[in-house]
Amino acid sequence: MKNLPVLGLMLGDMTGIGPEISARLLAAGTMKADARIAVIGDARVLALGCEDAGVELAWRKYAKLSDIDWARDEVPVIDLGNIDPAAIKRGEISPESGRLTGDTLKHMIDLALAGELDGICFAPLNKAALHRGGWKYHDEHQMFAALTQHAGFFGEMNVIKEFATFRVTSHVALREAVNMISPERITSAVRLADATLRANGVARPRIAVAALNPHSGEGGLFGDEEIRIIRPTVKKLQAEGMNCTGPISSDVIFLKALKGEYDGVVMMYHDQGQIATKLLGFNKGVTVTAGLKTVFATPAHGTAFDIVGQGKADTGALEQALRIASRMAAARPH
Amino acid sequence: MKNLPVLGLMLGDMTGIGPEISARLLAAGTMKADARIAVIGDARVLALGCEDAGVELAWRKYAKLSDIDWARDEVPVIDLGNIDPAAIKRGEISPESGRLTGDTLKHMIDLALAGELDGICFAPLNKAALHRGGWKYHDEHQMFAALTQHAGFFGEMNVIKEFATFRVTSHVALREAVNMISPERITSAVRLADATLRANGVARPRIAVAALNPHSGEGGLFGDEEIRIIRPTVKKLQAEGMNCTGPISSDVIFLKALKGEYDGVVMMYHDQGQIATKLLGFNKGVTVTAGLKTVFATPAHGTAFDIVGQGKADTGALEQALRIASRMAAARPH
Repeated sequence: MKNLPVLGLMLGDMTGIGPEISARLLAAGTMKADARIAVIGDARVLALGCEDAGVELAWRKYAKLSDIDWARDEVPVIDLGNIDPAAIKRGEISPESGRLTGDTLKHMIDLALAGELDGICFAPLNKAALHRGGWKYHDEHQMFAALTQHAGFFGEMNVIKEFATFRVTSHVALREAVNMISPERITSAVRLADATLRANGVARPRIAVAALNPHSGEGGLFGDEEIRIIRPTVKKLQAEGMNCTGPISSDVIFLKALKGEYDGVVMMYHDQGQIATKLLGFNKGVTVTAGLKTVFATPAHGTAFDIVGQGKADTGALEQALRIASRMAAARPH
Repeated sequence: MKNLPVLGLMLGDMTGIGPEISARLLAAGTMKADARIAVIGDARVLALGCEDAGVELAWRKYAKLSDIDWARDEVPVIDLGNIDPAAIKRGEISPESGRLTGDTLKHMIDLALAGELDGICFAPLNKAALHRGGWKYHDEHQMFAALTQHAGFFGEMNVIKEFATFRVTSHVALREAVNMISPERITSAVRLADATLRANGVARPRIAVAALNPHSGEGGLFGDEEIRIIRPTVKKLQAEGMNCTGPISSDVIFLKALKGEYDGVVMMYHDQGQIATKLLGFNKGVTVTAGLKTVFATPAHGTAFDIVGQGKADTGALEQALRIASRMAAARPH
């Protein structure tokens, strides 16, 4: 147990299903063999989650992480006392809740940077609330990169049962994405995929690199990025020992990945991966911010405002996110 | 019966499963209520298909379509006598077979232009064979447009059980596709979708128009084509009475279409649609060349070289292609 990584669990945006799925999962206790999990947030929000989920959860407050007695059975809670659930309406976007959600995440990142947390797992955020609450980043990954003072390549990893996806470009205009395709970015994305999959326990990750153009450019007829950029980069990486292949047409690559041919798929642009993964039941998947000093993992699904407080939200993706965060945190020196 | 459209059935590239699925479907006779179907091609290839499929098919040769006695039970065959199956190896690409496949299609198009055929349905072609055989078009749709001397917008319609897709751009580089997005092309594609779906029996087609950029451009943050081009064009079309909506993010539009919210989805670029439809079991679907004088329909699947001659290829998509061709041909004046 002493060697298990210490994960901070953030209850998500309290307007959503985060508190109730967190409470239910903690009460089930299924993650105890994987990690030492401490809730970081407001104890009143956790109490609300227990009530919604209809579970009895034994927890114990601590002032700081180093005080926690991990031999005890109760779930340790670092009570920030910052979010009063009585003051915020649930089931809809709340800029105030978004602001406080960001505050909590910032607090957790500081703990991680101080070496007190090995990884951060968070129940669903609401991106619009976060943005309106004053955390002005394109997405939470850029927020985490900024708050961890990260320089260099990083990116979103989307994990489903069959495979994981990585992106060469992400939240930029498609026109700009096409211009950003370069040997450097592809190399960074493939290396990130390789390192992240290894940290997830895949010994020698099989990585497929997507084409940019229809039919992989049909031999140069419909675009030459495959010939000029993607293929030479894949060959160079292969020569360096990377277990990668490509370019592969984007309407074929997922059929092959589904058959189990690859562990990771490197996409050229956002929608290439998102169209596929959303159709493949991505809601059950996990999103990881890959490449930062700190491990970040979260369910791919959102705050599910339509079912908030009904205690029926599924905990599967959150459990999987905690499992991935545990594995990745354990793979790091700590 | 006299009012049923006259369809020409082409047996596909003879190196593939076309002859056997055609023979099996004709022997089943299930399409007799929908159309008057004549096989146009080489009778020896049809005989081969019957042998592969293990079916007894009563057919009768005619010199020309106007000679056919539609009251008779036998399947009418216009025997072109141009393809000797003994001279061509099956299960692999044959430029010679591709050349002859193109000849047969050209012959059928001439019959259609002369008013003798109301529509053309073809079993799977092999695009590479067609190209190597001297039919130098980017795809068969461009070939059909050229051979029917079509000027103006036309395009591929991909039909699955739940919905049909149309494209604003198709076989061009992604960089070029982005530059080609214009009010004119979007308008043409939506109008084509509307007209084609009406010809398929949908009274007031519900058409969704995809966004170009991730998250529909996130309010201009990741690209402004949605604001500058797509949204104003959709509004203008709505004002003209078109039942269309959009732009809708491409990772959401298919989830909604699957739920039955739209009859047609208009994509901005090739892979946007192909990633989704291939994952949705598109192999069972049908491809239509929409917008030409002549109706063209074919199964979405290919020549399936790996199972040629085994008589186990599924006839479902070909039957569906014949059904769609019948419906569209019946909707035209003839």
